[in-house]
Formats: sequence, structure tokens, C-alpha cells
Amino acid sequence: MPQTPSRTERSRTAILSAAFELYTEQPYGRLTIEGIAARAGVGKPTIYRRWNSKGAVVLEALMEHVPPTAFPDTGDLVRDLRTWLHGIAGLLADPDRGPLFAGLVGAAQLDPELAEAWRERLYRPIRAAGADRLRAARDGGGLPPVDTDVLLDLLTGPIWFRLLVAGETPTREYADAVLDAVLRTP
Amino acid sequence: MPQTPSRTERSRTAILSAAFELYTEQPYGRLTIEGIAARAGVGKPTIYRRWNSKGAVVLEALMEHVPPTAFPDTGDLVRDLRTWLHGIAGLLADPDRGPLFAGLVGAAQLDPELAEAWRERLYRPIRAAGADRLRAARDGGGLPPVDTDVLLDLLTGPIWFRLLVAGETPTREYADAVLDAVLRTP
Repeated sequence: MPQTPSRTERSRTAILSAAFELYTEQPYGRLTIEGIAARAGVGKPTIYRRWNSKGAVVLEALMEHVPPTAFPDTGDLVRDLRTWLHGIAGLLADPDRGPLFAGLVGAAQLDPELAEAWRERLYRPIRAAGADRLRAARDGGGLPPVDTDVLLDLLTGPIWFRLLVAGETPTREYADAVLDAVLRTP
Repeated sequence: MPQTPSRTERSRTAILSAAFELYTEQPYGRLTIEGIAARAGVGKPTIYRRWNSKGAVVLEALMEHVPPTAFPDTGDLVRDLRTWLHGIAGLLADPDRGPLFAGLVGAAQLDPELAEAWRERLYRPIRAAGADRLRAARDGGGLPPVDTDVLLDLLTGPIWFRLLVAGETPTREYADAVLDAVLRTP
């Protein structure tokens, strides 16, 4: 028999659903903790007990509904990098999901709490997982002799750049071209 | 004797100064054409005669006050690329000017007219100048055999990625590391 979710868990789910719905309905700048509380049917203190800012709750809501692309591990690092970059490009190029991430990174330029939540919850964990894989497989991985952080930036930076700065769609073919250029495997 | 600026030129200057001042005082989302017109002492139609959106006028104001980094031409392409990337990193890492550009790219994620103005007025012209240089110097330039567009993304993408996604300062040393990694000249 499935366990009945606790009251805490139910309110968490309601808050995250409300935050996600509201974020898809209006720009981040117009969202408020009050609005999320009202939609979720909870009081503001219930939200603040778990999250310290609007940015933190919206980011967690987005991650709950669109789980970030995990770093695969098949033993073949180049193949795993390709899969991972395809996942990032696929997410950011998706007409429904891409703008949610672009909009959140955009809003983070004007909201230091959102920027911090983004870095803490999303950017740094994924980055650390990628860096661990690259460092572990270094010798046999078929990678160029480039600093791990710079290498990860060379792989993921252009995809985000296309989306945010160039205003173009980062396709899977584009991710392939970036990976091939970095590895020099045309 | 210096020529007296025409009335059109005076109102253009007043509008761009007002737009720049207002943009440094408040987030882009709160700016309005009404507010710019009021600060400049002109009517809204005077603004709309020249610019078709708030994004277009704010972008031109920013470019007027912080001219974009031109692509140098000394005949040594790698040296020119380094100078150019230093310029971009220096601009984006500057505590006064960097946030103006980050904020504008951020706002562009939520404002299609600003995004279009950004691409038309800033991104594409600089990009085209860079691509022309790379294509012209291709054989003797010391560059890797990589598609010009991908190569430019590999050089500039990581710098923007650091600023917008990682929330870190893209230093000149970082720009050097990116260029050296792409050229494989450690």
C-alpha cells in the first residue's frame, strides 16, 4: 500500500507546482512569493521555511519539472560527452523548455539571489560531475591537453552563447560540430 | 567655428543620454519610452520616428556610451584575436560596464524586440567583421581547421558563458587560456 505523503511533502509539491505554473505564465520579474503562496494554498512562512528567496523556489520548481541532463557513464568518455552535449542542446533548443532556462538565466542577471540559487543548485553540481569524469578519464579519454575547466567551457559555452547572445537555436548537429572541433575529429 | 548641431541631432543626443542614464538607474524591465521622453524633454513620437522599440533606443544608447570592441588589424591574426578577446573580457569583467551588457542580454531573453535590436545592431556586425578577418587570413593565420562560425563561438562563447551562466568574472588571463586552448599553443 503506497504511503500517504506527509503534510510537509504535500505542501512542498503544491508550492513547486504553483511556482512552475506561474513561471510558465508570466515573466520571472512579475512573480512574487505572495502569488506562489496564494496559488499553492499555503502561507508565505511555509515557503520561507524551506526556501530563502523567490529565485530558490522557482529554480527548484524548474528542476523538478525539467530534470537537468545528467552526465552519462558508459566507460567511453567521448561518447558520454556527446550524449551529454546532445542533452543540453536538446533541452535548450526545445521550444517549450529552452525559453524557461533562457528566461531564468536572463532574470538571474538582474536578481543576485536567483543567480546564487542557479549556481548552487544547478551549475556547480553538474559542473563538478563533469569535471570529475574528465579528470578520472584524463589519460585514456581521447581529450586534448587542456585545463579541465577551460575544456568544459569550450564544450558547453558555445551552446549557451548561441542561445543567449546569438539568439540562434543550438541543435544537436551544432553540439556535434563543437565537440568535433574541440577534439579535432572532423 | 564649430558647427551648431541641428535640432534633430540635439534631440537624438538628449534621447540617448536620457536612455543611458535611466538604464543605469533601474532594471531594463522598468524603463519606458515615456520615461525616456520625459527625461529627454521630447515627445514620444520624436523617439518613435527614429527607433521602433524601447530595446532599440536603449541598445543604441549603450553602444554610444560604451563603444563595442572593434576587431583590430595588425596583419598578425592571432595577435589581433588576442587583443579582441582581451577587449571583450575587459569590457564584460569591468564592474561598471559588464553588468550593463549582462543585464541587457538578460533582458533580451524576455523581450524579443530587444533581442532583435541586439542581434541586428551589435552581434551580427561584430560577428561579420570577425568572420571576414578569419576567412581572409585562413591559410596563413595559424588557426585550426575548424568552421569559421564554430571557431568564433569557441573563442567568444566561453567568455560570455562565464559571465552569464557560471556567474564568474571573465578575466584577460581567462581569455588567454581560451585562445591558447583553441589554438593549442600552451
